[in-house]
Amino acid sequence: MAQTEQKNQNVNKQFEELQSLLERAMALQTSMVLFEWDDETLAPKGAAEHTARVIGSLSEQYQEILASMRFKELLDVCQKAEKENAGVFDEVQSAILREAAEEQERLSCIPPEEYRAYAELTARATGIWTRAREKNDFASFAPVLKEIISYQKKFAAYRAKPGQKLYDVMLDTYEKGFNMEMLDPFFELMKGKIVPLLKESAERSKMVPDAFLSADYPEAAQAEAARFLAEYEGFDFDRGVLALSAHPFTTNLHNHDVRITTHYQKRIDSSIFSVLHETGHAIYEFGIRDDLTQTLVGQGTSMGMHECQSRFFENIVGRSYAFWKPIYGKVAQMFGSPLTETSLEDFLAAVNRTVPGLIRTEADELSYPLHVLVRYEIEKMLIEEDLEVEKLPQIWNDKYEEYLGVRPSTDREGVLQDIHWSQGSIGYFPSYALGNAFGAQIYHQMKKELPVEKLLEAGNLGEIREYLRKNIHQYGKLKDSRQILRDMTGEDFNPSYYVAYLEEKYGRPEKVQ
Amino acid sequence: MAQTEQKNQNVNKQFEELQSLLERAMALQTSMVLFEWDDETLAPKGAAEHTARVIGSLSEQYQEILASMRFKELLDVCQKAEKENAGVFDEVQSAILREAAEEQERLSCIPPEEYRAYAELTARATGIWTRAREKNDFASFAPVLKEIISYQKKFAAYRAKPGQKLYDVMLDTYEKGFNMEMLDPFFELMKGKIVPLLKESAERSKMVPDAFLSADYPEAAQAEAARFLAEYEGFDFDRGVLALSAHPFTTNLHNHDVRITTHYQKRIDSSIFSVLHETGHAIYEFGIRDDLTQTLVGQGTSMGMHECQSRFFENIVGRSYAFWKPIYGKVAQMFGSPLTETSLEDFLAAVNRTVPGLIRTEADELSYPLHVLVRYEIEKMLIEEDLEVEKLPQIWNDKYEEYLGVRPSTDREGVLQDIHWSQGSIGYFPSYALGNAFGAQIYHQMKKELPVEKLLEAGNLGEIREYLRKNIHQYGKLKDSRQILRDMTGEDFNPSYYVAYLEEKYGRPEKVQ
Repeated sequence: MAQTEQKNQNVNKQFEELQSLLERAMALQTSMVLFEWDDETLAPKGAAEHTARVIGSLSEQYQEILASMRFKELLDVCQKAEKENAGVFDEVQSAILREAAEEQERLSCIPPEEYRAYAELTARATGIWTRAREKNDFASFAPVLKEIISYQKKFAAYRAKPGQKLYDVMLDTYEKGFNMEMLDPFFELMKGKIVPLLKESAERSKMVPDAFLSADYPEAAQAEAARFLAEYEGFDFDRGVLALSAHPFTTNLHNHDVRITTHYQKRIDSSIFSVLHETGHAIYEFGIRDDLTQTLVGQGTSMGMHECQSRFFENIVGRSYAFWKPIYGKVAQMFGSPLTETSLEDFLAAVNRTVPGLIRTEADELSYPLHVLVRYEIEKMLIEEDLEVEKLPQIWNDKYEEYLGVRPSTDREGVLQDIHWSQGSIGYFPSYALGNAFGAQIYHQMKKELPVEKLLEAGNLGEIREYLRKNIHQYGKLKDSRQILRDMTGEDFNPSYYVAYLEEKYGRPEKVQ
Repeated sequence: MAQTEQKNQNVNKQFEELQSLLERAMALQTSMVLFEWDDETLAPKGAAEHTARVIGSLSEQYQEILASMRFKELLDVCQKAEKENAGVFDEVQSAILREAAEEQERLSCIPPEEYRAYAELTARATGIWTRAREKNDFASFAPVLKEIISYQKKFAAYRAKPGQKLYDVMLDTYEKGFNMEMLDPFFELMKGKIVPLLKESAERSKMVPDAFLSADYPEAAQAEAARFLAEYEGFDFDRGVLALSAHPFTTNLHNHDVRITTHYQKRIDSSIFSVLHETGHAIYEFGIRDDLTQTLVGQGTSMGMHECQSRFFENIVGRSYAFWKPIYGKVAQMFGSPLTETSLEDFLAAVNRTVPGLIRTEADELSYPLHVLVRYEIEKMLIEEDLEVEKLPQIWNDKYEEYLGVRPSTDREGVLQDIHWSQGSIGYFPSYALGNAFGAQIYHQMKKELPVEKLLEAGNLGEIREYLRKNIHQYGKLKDSRQILRDMTGEDFNPSYYVAYLEEKYGRPEKVQ
């Protein structure tokens, strides 16, 4: 017994040293997050090249800590101790060890010279992609994309478990526990159910007017409404910032500094729903426990679960009658005419129109999963079937025509629209669709436990937030998304709730929302 | 010969390694600068405590690099090589070595546990000072100040050369090459010449109206004028940002990202002249050579030379007839009535009034050096004569009465007004006065070489900036302030130009500016 205690004390010392290395790495990472925020919102345009050197150095220092011999040694000792004595670490420590080991493996399995070459490639690639999109010139992006895919496959191979498919390795990076075996039936379900539903709903939407959304509302009105809506949804301005950027996004330094952006465009629903969306992301980060923030497990657990929170507030809540009932009059006043002369019913009909289009980020709620479906099928072909990159535009356009009934006339509106591949993010897109599906499953459960509609109509979002915090947010990365779903709903991921939600909302012509 | 070459090659390798360590340290420092900027301009108020942990870790990592054994070894090898062979390093490399050695000494001569205790003390002290000032309660700040002084003396003693006085060590930190032997006659001159001049000028100023400066001008007008004036003076918005903060300041990440702030108050001259001031600082940083920025010698050379640039543009240029002649009409239009009904002559008379007051940061051009004189005399007493901290308020008030003819009725307006001592900055204040004096000496020389007034009247500030860039800005820390003065004006620091400038401007009742 005394010996065990002695041993545990030693292990605890090793864990402390590991923690202190991680604290350094987190400080470097938080700095990079701040630079990124600054770059998107404020930094002068001439600064980029010099600032890139700073970020490059921070990133190098980060990698060095986690790929160092000492870090590996400490990790090995702690992991061994945990295997031998299950009680030596508490839940949080165990989770930190698990994340640290994954991060360590991710950073150290790639030979440094390949890592550097790849980092340089993706640094160049985003610029090449930007210009290619501007010039509508896929051919100039194709060679770089080919290289990126080749690196991504190589890196996935380094990390693959015996028999694991490469695309499954990539999928698991963004959404732990998900692979093609789970996603194939999910997307098949989307294809089978949503494609026909979309056609009917789009046909009906043609009759719904929405010109009042793009009247000449002053930017100050959009700003006032943005701040009001963020606060109403639960954004804590004592621990957060709302700013402007070209593309809306959320970022956080820790759970006491969470930042969202929006942009003001001619169509006011763009800012309204992007604020509801980003605030959903922000509420997730605000809700993470104080003992987890600033550690490796102190962020939202996955891309999909994050997107679940944002789209739950943007769509399921944010496009509902109950949400708007207590505030519509006030928000309309902020914007003024013609919104003040528009009924809540007409407003809701307009923001719930189904309009299949070419651009994912502008997609309505019903079209959205089909945009992701196209990307999922293409990524599978690229990684598992060696699809030639040159054939991408043709296949992309064919799939859009087949699933969404629209065909891009340019690659700019087609295969070149998303930044993700140029950044090396392959396997990321499915999370967007999964987020929606998680949201429907959670919503189904939430309605059993909370009078959601009544709460919304009473302007009481606090109880809904609290429910999400208790079941999801607080845990950070202690649980993965499937574990959260199981603990919350009593079953594993089940996409049928999503289909039921969409069918219920968009399949009945007599109902607006 | 071959042997020497071999040796040089080896030394160059060591220097490269040193450079790469410095690059890391600079990246950490730049991150801290960005956090500071963010904290002053944008960060949510609830973030401070968590963000402090990040900054603490960055600062620790910075210190570790520069105080590491390896860094010291490399530095020793390079310094030895330089002594043995003067040609082995170029001018920039030599300067980097010199700065690195100073920074290394500064960080490593203090035992780590004392450094940490002191860092914690000053972190607490600023909060204690803030509350003490709010409550007008010097007694609650006195014990902390006593501790700070005791640490500062101890740290100065570690660094003192044989026979060097402790206050001289502190002065040299902020203004290389300056000590009491130089500053005593400077401040004696101020006392002898400015005190009587102030009384006369203040008497005359009582007749000068300035109510039109604090009419209810809209904040948008102040913002428009601020941006216009910054750009007119030479602020490069492609490489810079203008934002708002409680107290105006300038900061920079590198020479391609320089940031200034201002604040909008009831009196519009506050923002007008703070923008001219901060832009002066910014122009210095913009002008630093590309091969120096992001190195240890890539910033303005000293506090005094920085203040020289800012106050040159704020006062010597910015309060002159020639500067305003081409733009006054336009700026008045931005503000509207009653400025549009005020003549340029009346505007200049108002912004050049002499109004001896209690607060340094609000002081007019003539009173300013006397505010610094008070602090210089008191700091000398604290460090060299062991003045008891408890006696500070009395002495402070007596000196204000003697030199400025005003007596604080509260310590808030007296000894508690400045943040500097709570941050451990002792020996910093004299730089403020030196900056003005450098400016007058440089201006005297500039007028010999450039038709300054004509250039200003023609709206041609470019040639003036270029002159400063060529003679001062470009060098960064390659030259210290005395070297710059010698190279530029052919003589060492000479405060008589400053006295002559002030006597010329404020000693002749018939002249406004």
